[in-house]
Amino acid sequence: MPYQIAIVGPTGYTGYFLLDWLLRHPDVEPVYLASHREEETDITIEFPRLLGRIDPEVAMCQPIDADAIADAADVAFLALPHRAAMDYAPMLLDAGVKVIDLSADYRLADPDLYERVYEHEHTDREHLPDAVYGLPELMRNKIVDSTFIANPGCYPTAAALAIAPLLNHSLANTSNIIINAASGVTGAGRGAKPALHFPEENESYYAYGTIGGHRHQPEIEQTLSRVAGKSVDTTFVPHLLPIDQGILETIYLEPADDDVTDEDLLEAYQDAYAAEPFVRVVAHLPNVKHVRNTNFCDVTARLIRHPDRPAKIVAFSAIDNMVKGAAGQAIQNMNLMLGLNETTGLL
Amino acid sequence: MPYQIAIVGPTGYTGYFLLDWLLRHPDVEPVYLASHREEETDITIEFPRLLGRIDPEVAMCQPIDADAIADAADVAFLALPHRAAMDYAPMLLDAGVKVIDLSADYRLADPDLYERVYEHEHTDREHLPDAVYGLPELMRNKIVDSTFIANPGCYPTAAALAIAPLLNHSLANTSNIIINAASGVTGAGRGAKPALHFPEENESYYAYGTIGGHRHQPEIEQTLSRVAGKSVDTTFVPHLLPIDQGILETIYLEPADDDVTDEDLLEAYQDAYAAEPFVRVVAHLPNVKHVRNTNFCDVTARLIRHPDRPAKIVAFSAIDNMVKGAAGQAIQNMNLMLGLNETTGLL
Amino acid sequence: MPYQIAIVGPTGYTGYFLLDWLLRHPDVEPVYLASHREEETDITIEFPRLLGRIDPEVAMCQPIDADAIADAADVAFLALPHRAAMDYAPMLLDAGVKVIDLSADYRLADPDLYERVYEHEHTDREHLPDAVYGLPELMRNKIVDSTFIANPGCYPTAAALAIAPLLNHSLANTSNIIINAASGVTGAGRGAKPALHFPEENESYYAYGTIGGHRHQPEIEQTLSRVAGKSVDTTFVPHLLPIDQGILETIYLEPADDDVTDEDLLEAYQDAYAAEPFVRVVAHLPNVKHVRNTNFCDVTARLIRHPDRPAKIVAFSAIDNMVKGAAGQAIQNMNLMLGLNETTGLL
Amino acid sequence: MPYQIAIVGPTGYTGYFLLDWLLRHPDVEPVYLASHREEETDITIEFPRLLGRIDPEVAMCQPIDADAIADAADVAFLALPHRAAMDYAPMLLDAGVKVIDLSADYRLADPDLYERVYEHEHTDREHLPDAVYGLPELMRNKIVDSTFIANPGCYPTAAALAIAPLLNHSLANTSNIIINAASGVTGAGRGAKPALHFPEENESYYAYGTIGGHRHQPEIEQTLSRVAGKSVDTTFVPHLLPIDQGILETIYLEPADDDVTDEDLLEAYQDAYAAEPFVRVVAHLPNVKHVRNTNFCDVTARLIRHPDRPAKIVAFSAIDNMVKGAAGQAIQNMNLMLGLNETTGLL
Repeated sequence: MPYQIAIVGPTGYTGYFLLDWLLRHPDVEPVYLASHREEETDITIEFPRLLGRIDPEVAMCQPIDADAIADAADVAFLALPHRAAMDYAPMLLDAGVKVIDLSADYRLADPDLYERVYEHEHTDREHLPDAVYGLPELMRNKIVDSTFIANPGCYPTAAALAIAPLLNHSLANTSNIIINAASGVTGAGRGAKPALHFPEENESYYAYGTIGGHRHQPEIEQTLSRVAGKSVDTTFVPHLLPIDQGILETIYLEPADDDVTDEDLLEAYQDAYAAEPFVRVVAHLPNVKHVRNTNFCDVTARLIRHPDRPAKIVAFSAIDNMVKGAAGQAIQNMNLMLGLNETTGLL
Repeated sequence: MPYQIAIVGPTGYTGYFLLDWLLRHPDVEPVYLASHREEETDITIEFPRLLGRIDPEVAMCQPIDADAIADAADVAFLALPHRAAMDYAPMLLDAGVKVIDLSADYRLADPDLYERVYEHEHTDREHLPDAVYGLPELMRNKIVDSTFIANPGCYPTAAALAIAPLLNHSLANTSNIIINAASGVTGAGRGAKPALHFPEENESYYAYGTIGGHRHQPEIEQTLSRVAGKSVDTTFVPHLLPIDQGILETIYLEPADDDVTDEDLLEAYQDAYAAEPFVRVVAHLPNVKHVRNTNFCDVTARLIRHPDRPAKIVAFSAIDNMVKGAAGQAIQNMNLMLGLNETTGLL
Repeated sequence: MPYQIAIVGPTGYTGYFLLDWLLRHPDVEPVYLASHREEETDITIEFPRLLGRIDPEVAMCQPIDADAIADAADVAFLALPHRAAMDYAPMLLDAGVKVIDLSADYRLADPDLYERVYEHEHTDREHLPDAVYGLPELMRNKIVDSTFIANPGCYPTAAALAIAPLLNHSLANTSNIIINAASGVTGAGRGAKPALHFPEENESYYAYGTIGGHRHQPEIEQTLSRVAGKSVDTTFVPHLLPIDQGILETIYLEPADDDVTDEDLLEAYQDAYAAEPFVRVVAHLPNVKHVRNTNFCDVTARLIRHPDRPAKIVAFSAIDNMVKGAAGQAIQNMNLMLGLNETTGLL
Repeated sequence: MPYQIAIVGPTGYTGYFLLDWLLRHPDVEPVYLASHREEETDITIEFPRLLGRIDPEVAMCQPIDADAIADAADVAFLALPHRAAMDYAPMLLDAGVKVIDLSADYRLADPDLYERVYEHEHTDREHLPDAVYGLPELMRNKIVDSTFIANPGCYPTAAALAIAPLLNHSLANTSNIIINAASGVTGAGRGAKPALHFPEENESYYAYGTIGGHRHQPEIEQTLSRVAGKSVDTTFVPHLLPIDQGILETIYLEPADDDVTDEDLLEAYQDAYAAEPFVRVVAHLPNVKHVRNTNFCDVTARLIRHPDRPAKIVAFSAIDNMVKGAAGQAIQNMNLMLGLNETTGLL
C-alpha cells in the first residue's frame, strides 16, 4: 500500500510542483490537500494542468486540521509562506506526522539570526533543534533518521552543491566568494505583482532586492561554514530571468594556493558526486534548460590563470528552482525518510 | 514653435507609447500630463525608460483640469479607460481643445448600441455625432477638418484594413467572415492580473473572453458596413500571444463569385493602398515582428481553390497594437488635424 | 522483465521526447538507439538533459541494422523524416519487430494521394495496408491487434479529437470547416534555419507555408471522412508561435441545423471522451500551457448564435505537439500493442 | 542638404540597426548599401521591416567599391566581421571618406595584442594609429576631430561606463574586478546556429565561450587602464539571455579604502555623467528593458559593508547591445564628427 501524503498550502507554485511529482511517484499517494483559504478551493481549477490526474475528492482542499492530517497521512509537506509554517509544524509533529517544511522557518539553526533576517519572532524554538537541513548530498545520514526536515532554499541548494567540494578539498578560500545568481520567475511566487506582469517581465533582466541583504545569504553561509569548519564570507546578488524555471549561479572564488589546477577542481566534484544520482559533474558550461523539470544539479568549474595576476576559480551550478530547488528535493528527502530508493519517482 | 500637447491618462501602456512617440516628433511638444490618480505621479518613475527624455517638470502629472489643459495645449489625447473618457472629453471640447480619444466611448455612432455593448450609459450623446472615426485610410477627408477624433480599436484597425478593399471591390461576401485574431499582452492593459503573471502567460496561447461577444466586433462591423453599404456579418475570436506587442488577424472570407483570382485580391489592395504611407501590401505572409514599434499595417491575401469545393479567401493583417492600433494612429490623426505631413514623427 | 525498445532516429526532437518518456516508463527499457549519421553519436552529448538517466552504452548510437534491432528489441519506434521511414520499416517488419512509425509515410491509406502530397514515390505499397492509423480514441480496437502503427501527425491529432464527435453526432456540417492552427517551434524540427534563429522567431507570430496546401490537411480529411462516412472539406491554416511546445486549433464549423445548442456540443464530447484517459472535456478555453509535457488533449466548443445570422460552432483543441502530437501518442499505442495499461508511463 | 551615408555590410543585425536609426535621422540620408555577397540583395527582402521606409534603388545592395562609395557618401559605416573591415577601411580612408568601423579591427591600439587575441594578422598597421576609440563619454574631444573611428564593443561600452568613474575617483581598486555580463541573442549575430535555434535558446540561460578568454576583455582593460593610468585586471564572464536585445553587467569591485560610501559612488557617477545625454545615473537597479531600443546606458552602484568582512562595491550597467553597444553609439560618433548636435536622431 502506498504511503499517504498531505500537502499543506498546495495553491502556490511549490504546492503545484509537489503534487505534479507526487502524482507520478509509484509508492506514495497524495490524499489530503490543506489550505488556509476561506473560500472552497478545487486544486484542478487552480491548476487546470492537474485535471484528469487527481481524484476529484482529494482535489477539494480541506482545512488545516492537524489531527485530521495525522489520521490521513504518513508525511506532510508544508508549502506555506515562512512564518505560517511555524504555526502548523508543531501540531503536526506532535501528532506524529513526518514533516517536510519547504519554508524558511527551520532552515537557520540559530533562532536569533532567523529573527534578524526575517524580522519577526521565531515562535517554535522548541522544535527548531529537531529540524534536519535537507540537503541529501551533505546530510543524508541525518535525513534518513529524521522525522522533520527543513527543505533548503533554491539559491542555497545551487550554491552549496557547487562550493562545498571546493572548500572541503581546500581548493578555494573561504572569504571573498562572489555568487552571481539568476532565477526564473516561478521563484518569485504565484502572486501577480506589477513588476512580474508579462509585458514588464518579458524581455527583461535585472538584479533585484537589497544588494547584499538577501535572506538566502545567511542560509548559504551556514551550510558552507559547516563544511569549511569556519566562517565563510560570500557576496550574493540575485537577478531575475524572463523564463519560468531555472537557477544558474556563476560563482567566483580565489584558489587556496598557486598550485590549484582545473583537474583539481573537477576531481573535487567527482570525489563528492560520483555516486550521487542527482548531481552531474559536466564538462560543458551548465544551462538552466538542461535541468528544467528535473531534479538534477549540473556543476562544473574553470580555473582562470594569467601571468602577473591572481588566479580565479569560476564555478557554475544549474538547477530547476522548483524541483531540486524545492519540490524535487523535498521528495528526495521523503524517499530517504521512508526508506525508499532515493531516486524513486524523480528520474 | 511646436504645437503643445496634453496627455490625459499617461500611466497606462497607451499613455506611455503616446509619450514615447510624441517626444520624438519634431513639430510637437508634450507639455501637460494629467492623471486622476490621487498620489503624486512622476512619469519617469512609472516608466524609467523615459528618464532623460522629458523635462522633469512636465514629467510630474497634474490634475485633470480642463481649463488648465486648454490654456496649455492645442491637442489633448485621452488615454483613459472607456467610460472615464466621457467624463473629460466634453469639458475639453467645450474649452476649445482638439481632442483625440483613444477609448471606446465615441467609436460607435449609435449610443444605444454602445450601451448594450459596454453595459453602461452613454453620458455624452451631445458630442457623439461630432466624433470622427479616426481611421485615416478610410476617413482622411473628415479627419482633416475635425476637432474630435474617436481613435479606432486595435483589432478593428487590423480587420478594417484587410477586409475593406475586398468588400469595396465586391470580391468577398459580406456574410460569414471569420476573423481569427491574436494579440500581444500590452493589449490587455498594464494592471497586474493572475492570468498575465509572467509564469502563467509565458509559453502560453489561448482564446479569451466570451466567444462571439467581444466588444470590438460591433466596431468592426460598423466600419465594414459603411464600406459595403449593407450589413456585414463577422465571427471574431481573439487569442492572447505570449509577446509584448503585435496583432495578427487571419481572416476567412467567401469569394463573391467563381471568377475571383489571387491577382484580383492583390489589385484591390494595391488600388486601396498604393498611395498610403502606412499600409504595406506584401507578397509574403505578414509577421507581427515586421511591424513591431512601427505604424505600419502589413496586409496580403490568398485564394484557396480546390476542385469540387467552394473557394476561400484567406486574408492576413499585422499591426503593432500599441502603434497603428493605438498611439501611432492617434498621432497620424493629430498630424492630419494640424495640417502637418501625415508621416511626420512616424517613420 | 521489461520490454526492450529501439529508437531509430533518436537525434531529432521526436527522438528526444520518446527517450525522455520511455526512460520513465516502468515496463519498458530503451536498449538500442539507431542513427544513420556517419559520425559517432552519443545521445547525452546531443541532449545533455539525458545525462545520468541512460546507460552510457545504450547512449552510443548504433547503425540502423534491422537484424540487430530485431535481436535486441520487441518494439522499434521510427523517428525519421518521411521518405526515410519507408527505407527501414519493411526490413524491421519482416524481421518480426513491432514498428511504430512517427513519420508521415504510412498515414495516408491511398498511396497515390501520398505521392501527390509528398511529391515522391511511395516505395512500400506492400506494407501500407497493414499500417493502422494510431489514434487510440478512434482506432483502439485495431491498434490492440496491430504490429505496425502509423502514428498520427500533430495537427491531425488535435483536429480529429475536436471535430470527430461533432460529425459523429451530426451536430456540424461536413463542409466549410475552418481550422486555424498554431504550433510551437519544436514542430518545425531541430535543424537550425534562419527563420527560426532566436532573434527572428522570438516575439514573432505568423502563418507559414502554402496557404491551402499543408501536407497535414489530407490526413485530417481522411480521418474525418472515415468518421462522417462521407467526404469532409476543411480549410487549414497553420501559424508558428514563439514557444517551445504546444498546438492550439481554433475550429469554425457550421451547425448541422438550427436546434444545436451548447449543451449538445459538450454532450457529444462527453459521450466520446468520458472514459478516455487522455482527452479532457473542459469548461474553460483550452491553453497550450495546460497540456505542456502531458499526453492530454483539452477540448471544448461554443455555439455562437445571433438573431438574423447563421450560427457558428467554435471548437478548441490543445495538445503538446511533442507528446500527444508525437512521442506520447506513440507510447500510448505501444502500451496498447503490448497489452499494458494504456496510461502506464504517461500520467 | 543631408549628409550622404554608406553602409558596408548591411545584412547583419548591426547593419539593420544602423539603417533603422539612420532612416529616422533628420540630417543624414543612407544612399549606398554595399555588400560582398555574390547574389543580388534587396535589403527590404532581408529585413521586411524596412519596406516602405527606404528608396527601392538604395535598397538594392551594390558592390563594395571604394571609389563609388567615396563619390556617393560623406561617411561610411563598416558593419563587417572583424578581419573583413581591414580589407576595406584603408581604401575608403584613402579615398577621403570618413569611416566608422563597427568591427573589432581597430579597437586595440597594440597590433601585436590584436594578433594574439584574434589569432590572425593585423593587415593595416598603417591606419591603426589614426583610429580613435569611439566612446564619446571618454573620448569626445578626439572624436570631434577624427575621420576614423573604431566603434567600441558592446560589452566594453557597458563595462567602461560603469567602472571608469570609480577608478577615476580612486574609489575602487584596479585589480580583482569581476564583470559578470549577460547579453541578448542579437549579440551573437544573424547566422543560424544550432545553439541559437529557437527551441534550444528559448527558456535557457548559460555562460558561454572560453571562461577567462573572451576577446572583449583586452578591450575593456585597455580602456580602463587608460583611465586609471595603470594596468587594470578584470575577470570577465559573459552569459546568453533568451531575449533579443540588451546587456546587463553586474560588476564586483573592491573599495579603495574603508571610507568609501554609497554617496561617493553616486557622486562619482554624477560628476562624470551629469552633463552626458546618454548615461543615466539611476537610483534603482538597471534593467535591460528600460534601455531597449535606446542609446542610453543606465548605471548605478551599491556598497556592501558588513562588520568583520571586507566591503564590496557592486556596480550595474545596462545598455542595448545593438544601440549604445553598436549602431547608436556609431551614430553618436557620426554626429560628433559631422558637427551635428550629439543627440540628433538618437532621442
